[in-house]
Amino acid sequence: MADGGEGTLDTVLSCGGQRLTARVSGASGKTVEASYGIVGEGRIAIVEAAQIVGLTDPDGTAIDVEQRSSRGIGELMARLLDGGLREFMVGLGGTSTNDGGAGMLAALGVQLLDAGGRAVDATPGGLATLATVDAGGLDPRLRQATITIMSDVDNVLAGPRGATAIFGPQKGVRPERVAKLDARLARFAALVEKALGKTAHDRPGAGAAGGLGFALQLLGGEMRSGAEVVADLVGLDAAIQGAHWVITGEGRTDAQTLLGKTPLVVSRRGASMGVPVTLISGGIDRAALPELSRHFAGCFSLTFGPMALEQCVAQAGDLLADRAEQLALLFTALHNAGP
Amino acid sequence: MADGGEGTLDTVLSCGGQRLTARVSGASGKTVEASYGIVGEGRIAIVEAAQIVGLTDPDGTAIDVEQRSSRGIGELMARLLDGGLREFMVGLGGTSTNDGGAGMLAALGVQLLDAGGRAVDATPGGLATLATVDAGGLDPRLRQATITIMSDVDNVLAGPRGATAIFGPQKGVRPERVAKLDARLARFAALVEKALGKTAHDRPGAGAAGGLGFALQLLGGEMRSGAEVVADLVGLDAAIQGAHWVITGEGRTDAQTLLGKTPLVVSRRGASMGVPVTLISGGIDRAALPELSRHFAGCFSLTFGPMALEQCVAQAGDLLADRAEQLALLFTALHNAGP
Repeated sequence: MADGGEGTLDTVLSCGGQRLTARVSGASGKTVEASYGIVGEGRIAIVEAAQIVGLTDPDGTAIDVEQRSSRGIGELMARLLDGGLREFMVGLGGTSTNDGGAGMLAALGVQLLDAGGRAVDATPGGLATLATVDAGGLDPRLRQATITIMSDVDNVLAGPRGATAIFGPQKGVRPERVAKLDARLARFAALVEKALGKTAHDRPGAGAAGGLGFALQLLGGEMRSGAEVVADLVGLDAAIQGAHWVITGEGRTDAQTLLGKTPLVVSRRGASMGVPVTLISGGIDRAALPELSRHFAGCFSLTFGPMALEQCVAQAGDLLADRAEQLALLFTALHNAGP
Repeated sequence: MADGGEGTLDTVLSCGGQRLTARVSGASGKTVEASYGIVGEGRIAIVEAAQIVGLTDPDGTAIDVEQRSSRGIGELMARLLDGGLREFMVGLGGTSTNDGGAGMLAALGVQLLDAGGRAVDATPGGLATLATVDAGGLDPRLRQATITIMSDVDNVLAGPRGATAIFGPQKGVRPERVAKLDARLARFAALVEKALGKTAHDRPGAGAAGGLGFALQLLGGEMRSGAEVVADLVGLDAAIQGAHWVITGEGRTDAQTLLGKTPLVVSRRGASMGVPVTLISGGIDRAALPELSRHFAGCFSLTFGPMALEQCVAQAGDLLADRAEQLALLFTALHNAGP
């Protein structure tokens, strides 16, 4: 399973489909080789934003966040439109950009101009001199496109609960720059909304992936829980149907898990089919156990005793295998003992 | 459950019987208030050696191990004989003495004399000048007594696998004194065996509790696995009979557990009745999992994620409760889901 963030593409492709790569602009403008997927008998493109403008791309994070652009996402979508694709599933999460999706829109034909009518950089820095937006050149094929946005973030684009205030600092926005960049995104949003005759900046999820959630919703994209979409794509219901037991898991579990993260989605689907779902997690916040216990048939950590986080991370694969095996021993024994 | 060591008395008395106390000599000679138990409708005395000469008695460990004596054990047994008791179950483990049981035997009437016919101290130090042993004064009531020795140690009294070599250092015997003290115990053993016309120094368990295992076997005591005896005393079989599932546990689990420690005894009894036994442990040596998995329906640690040993110890009670609850959730869910 995955939740629309890092690993989504691998998860979906592990159940079929085609993995392809495209050379597009990374956050820094340098070319990156980005993987994407084609599933659903060639009809659906799976785009993982982090493959193009990911926090793990050293070129992207080497430059200031104010110079990073989401242009590569738009470049890939244009390429896919060229290839005849009209159904997009875009996983947000794990991105290094905070440009309100300006780069993506620019790559798809939206013109961002300064007071002198010159194109500005589609970056937070470039947006400082943005004066007008001309959406007349927006790729018309997008009107036939269906865009599903996979994200669990419900923040709006700007303001105290916006992309810059909440996620900016972890992308490198200095505290003293938050207000200024936030205002730029708000102004950019107002101009592009006016140009397109639509609004999206106040929609839940507009603040996802540095505002890609805003720009994709402006293009008609629909926000869905990443975990729910992935569950559908990998055929989770069919896998649970007829099973005796399901094990799910994540890296660390606390009360936030119950706000819709992957394990909760698995637990809900299990519950709807009467199949118990057990959680294995790297670490579990014991304070959340009373709530977690309403959703999981037992919560278990990877650890086999006192150990340091680094050890746990280094041995995660083996620990997971051993823990799952021990749970399976219990399952088998109880199953064989019978009532 | 318990294994004959620390906690045995509490465990046995938690299932019935009477807790009494006696004032007898501790390892240092100072009086200690020692708890003991009477079970089996007043017929059986439960003596926990650590209650009298325990490693946790600060007076005992304040003096050199060569000055410590097991006399108090003999004093309590004499008191119990006075009270009409003839059935003794003596739990070894957790003792601070290494006197070969000389103190206990002296308190029960065996005379330890130097070359001049003067009584020597019944301590490792005193045994240095031991010349003759006169067992003529040994309490005759012991002939009617049944003594069960609860211990999991199978070391002999002296030599490289003897009490002094193996357990001496952890009681404070300095490495350079091991050979000397070991020779004293061997000499003492030879003299007392001659006086009683019996041998015991080479029997498995003679080296338990600094040689109390030797002295008690000389008195006719029979070695039994502490965990097996406690299992019988607490009625473990009856508790397992008809149960769906058993949880057992210990502080730390590794391959040694399978040499007969408490959880293994519980696992065997569960297996004989077809009831699965699951292990909860403070920490589990993952290298032992393949072997452990043949005996337990799953091995689970107390921990809910990376944490330090001290934290784990400090919160052991809460962690144990939470872990057991999570296992119970799984059990209940699987049980309700049915096959």
